[in-house]
Amino acid sequence: VSWRTTRASADGEPPRTVAVIDLGSNSWRLVVFTFVAGDWWKRTDELYEDVRIGAGMGADHHLREDAIARGLETLSVFARFCRAGELGPGDVHAVATSAIREAVNQQVFLDRAAQATDQFRIEVLSGEQEARFGHIAAVNTTTLTDGTVLEIGGGSLQLIEVRGRRAGALRSFELGAVRMTEAFLTRRGPASKSDLRKLRKHVRQELSELGWLRGAGQPMVGIGGAVRNLAAFAQATAGAPDMGVQGFRLTRETLGDLVAELAARPPSARGELPGIKPGRGDIILASAATIEAAVEFAEAPAIEVTEAGLRDGVFIARELLAGREPLFDDVRRAAVRNLAIQYESDLSHVEHVAALSLQLFDSLVQQGAFAPDTGERELLWAAAMLHDVGMTISYDDHHKHSRYLIVSAELPGFDPRERALIAQISRYHRKGTPKLGELAGLVRRGDHALLERCAIIVRVAEHLERGRDQAVREVRVERGGRDGGLRLEAVGDLTLPRWSIERYGDSELFERVFGQPLVVG
Amino acid sequence: VSWRTTRASADGEPPRTVAVIDLGSNSWRLVVFTFVAGDWWKRTDELYEDVRIGAGMGADHHLREDAIARGLETLSVFARFCRAGELGPGDVHAVATSAIREAVNQQVFLDRAAQATDQFRIEVLSGEQEARFGHIAAVNTTTLTDGTVLEIGGGSLQLIEVRGRRAGALRSFELGAVRMTEAFLTRRGPASKSDLRKLRKHVRQELSELGWLRGAGQPMVGIGGAVRNLAAFAQATAGAPDMGVQGFRLTRETLGDLVAELAARPPSARGELPGIKPGRGDIILASAATIEAAVEFAEAPAIEVTEAGLRDGVFIARELLAGREPLFDDVRRAAVRNLAIQYESDLSHVEHVAALSLQLFDSLVQQGAFAPDTGERELLWAAAMLHDVGMTISYDDHHKHSRYLIVSAELPGFDPRERALIAQISRYHRKGTPKLGELAGLVRRGDHALLERCAIIVRVAEHLERGRDQAVREVRVERGGRDGGLRLEAVGDLTLPRWSIERYGDSELFERVFGQPLVVG
Repeated sequence: VSWRTTRASADGEPPRTVAVIDLGSNSWRLVVFTFVAGDWWKRTDELYEDVRIGAGMGADHHLREDAIARGLETLSVFARFCRAGELGPGDVHAVATSAIREAVNQQVFLDRAAQATDQFRIEVLSGEQEARFGHIAAVNTTTLTDGTVLEIGGGSLQLIEVRGRRAGALRSFELGAVRMTEAFLTRRGPASKSDLRKLRKHVRQELSELGWLRGAGQPMVGIGGAVRNLAAFAQATAGAPDMGVQGFRLTRETLGDLVAELAARPPSARGELPGIKPGRGDIILASAATIEAAVEFAEAPAIEVTEAGLRDGVFIARELLAGREPLFDDVRRAAVRNLAIQYESDLSHVEHVAALSLQLFDSLVQQGAFAPDTGERELLWAAAMLHDVGMTISYDDHHKHSRYLIVSAELPGFDPRERALIAQISRYHRKGTPKLGELAGLVRRGDHALLERCAIIVRVAEHLERGRDQAVREVRVERGGRDGGLRLEAVGDLTLPRWSIERYGDSELFERVFGQPLVVG
Repeated sequence: VSWRTTRASADGEPPRTVAVIDLGSNSWRLVVFTFVAGDWWKRTDELYEDVRIGAGMGADHHLREDAIARGLETLSVFARFCRAGELGPGDVHAVATSAIREAVNQQVFLDRAAQATDQFRIEVLSGEQEARFGHIAAVNTTTLTDGTVLEIGGGSLQLIEVRGRRAGALRSFELGAVRMTEAFLTRRGPASKSDLRKLRKHVRQELSELGWLRGAGQPMVGIGGAVRNLAAFAQATAGAPDMGVQGFRLTRETLGDLVAELAARPPSARGELPGIKPGRGDIILASAATIEAAVEFAEAPAIEVTEAGLRDGVFIARELLAGREPLFDDVRRAAVRNLAIQYESDLSHVEHVAALSLQLFDSLVQQGAFAPDTGERELLWAAAMLHDVGMTISYDDHHKHSRYLIVSAELPGFDPRERALIAQISRYHRKGTPKLGELAGLVRRGDHALLERCAIIVRVAEHLERGRDQAVREVRVERGGRDGGLRLEAVGDLTLPRWSIERYGDSELFERVFGQPLVVG
């Protein structure tokens, strides 16, 4: 295949390449994944087309001839692409959702599609199956344990109850963006309040039977292009640094503001707003208002965004975690490990730096050197695991490159603030005075101190592991060093650590951060 | 060894790791290289120490006891590092230069060094050998064909005549920075004009016997930490975007300004200037004035900087190109290919995009669509080869990542302007209106038009190769398309190219740039 990579897994297994084709009611998408099952994975290509297969279906649920023609043309492009990439039927998962599922002339379309290509066959998902894949995408890319997954596409809206990360009740509703636009928001100018009121009322009526959802007030995770676009729009409006939307929380208040901003413009102008895809401009208001109504119905404080979608759910269930329950044991660990492996980190080294960092952290806390913030220990661990990813680019300035790569990564399971902190800790793992810089707008009060603490801890751990050979096996700090400082007690060969700590003069930063000098014992 | 990489060469050869240890008169450096001979190479680690082994040697050429003690301590750190990385004597090249070469107590030092470590043995280079490695570093990282290589270290200055890329006359002089500082610039305050005059006169006298150099007026390439620091200082002073110093040209005028700026400050303040390493602050003025005097003597218009040094020369000659004449056939091609391989590019794909780009370029020129700038064709080729390097980071936004990676690369053989253009062409190989952005300060008049032309050409070539399978074998443009446009005549399957060109609507940009619409024939 043509997405060549010479990167095998640690035990030499060569990577595979597969495609997932998502034939949605609005957009069609072919996504290529390259991966070693259970080890690492990566999206490596994508074709996207606004096919609008569901456009004009109306109440008679009939795919229109011009929509079918657009669909077949796009299928022939996708098929040619699969042939070019040597992807055969066993490597392609093509799934169709709401519009094709509900179409009375579904078989006509499927027969003509089968004639057009034998590179793959199309699997029409039931509403329940669609919801299940949405659930898999959501719980493997967020830390959602108990709450709701909301998945909105062009044709349908899925709502899935989540209990202990597993799917409970799940339902699909014909409340997708293309449908809702055609039913309620057909004006060419700004949307009227009464149209929006009718839309909201319809959503509430449809959802009314979901007793488990009404007023539950639990966390909600949102899936789909509309959710991602709305988050990007909200971030751009707030002037936040661009860290991607993964993990971003759209509050009910912000959702209300976005609906008002979109409604005030004619549909043709909505696609020009920052973050909104131009091809989605005319249906984005329906999505926003529908999501808002659902969030209100559930009394969720916010909806958390994930970049993952149905296609990722299909990939995870059918390929990456095939043959087991499709749930990572720990989403954050899987994400961090995936990134570390992709950048060919020396895992023995970074895992040891992480272990030494946590030993230092625990020991410093025990000695009363500082009181940790919530979640600080896990951010320290993630930064220690990822501090070297920039080595992929070059040894010189690899700390700066690590920052760039972490900022550029989705790192599912972490929100933008957490990713900003992990990036900055890595940025300062070698030298310099830790600063939040342009990411300051993303963090909370107290995070600068957290950054300083974690950066100096990773630095000391890195000095201890300067030989990259795990020669220092254990470390702790104890009171009663010379000059009343903290004594670093390490088990192993200290030739390189001593030289490295002295060479980079980090004792000074240590003293400023922890109030006491560090003395190598 | 611990610089693990799973990246083998295309034919499966696993990478090797070696270290080069450069025991200079001022600084000592251990550099780790990971490589597959004749395929790709990369610096993967570095230890650096300002040992000043030559400090206080004076006219009696005696290594002082305290300097030897510092040296042995650093050697034990280097030896421990080699042991940690499982680098044995066959993997380590330790070379000593001027100070140790000239020392009357050289053997005392070498014996004590041999007692301290058996990880490697130290090879004392003659002045001629040192010059030869400098020559190899210079001609493999620049496009120098006929001219001079100047290499300045703490102890000595080497000048090498270059004819047809090969070394002609070569000489080593005791004009290194530590020596010259101790001989002429010992004041604690600003340097006096008369001290600088004496230094210059001494340099001229020493060089006077080099008939081939005097007034030659040929290009000169500079090697060594002092040259790199001065270039970084000049770039920072000029407020230029940080693209690294590789290929930067320090003119005689700028050199004069830098000498004046350094001389006006006390030695202790010189290491605080931007670009100057703090540990080099007290000797940087001697380097600058010596280089200036040599450049003037040669009547060279400027000195071109390379990041490479003696250590790279040793690595290239002894490892990367061992067993053949240590000269890349084409420095630029080797650099571009090295980068493409490091980022695991699909070489069949990028080489084909490059070939199609050049076919389009030649055909457009032939049709009179534009008159190319000097060097434009090679920049187009390089950008086409590197357009996909950002895929290493992620498929999404890979054009932006390609820009970052190219800006972050040394890419020997290209100067900062050329690297900026290659980076921006890659940045715009998918979409957007090509802009120079923050790199505008580096380019010349007319370069924005060059960027637009090259970006649209790579885009069309990429559309033609959208399947990454070389299905479109050849392409040319001809006059007489519909609406008087240029007709794209391609040999091969056009399903994906047609879709891709239409999808991304690049005909518009094409018409703006070349004055005529592009019609897919």
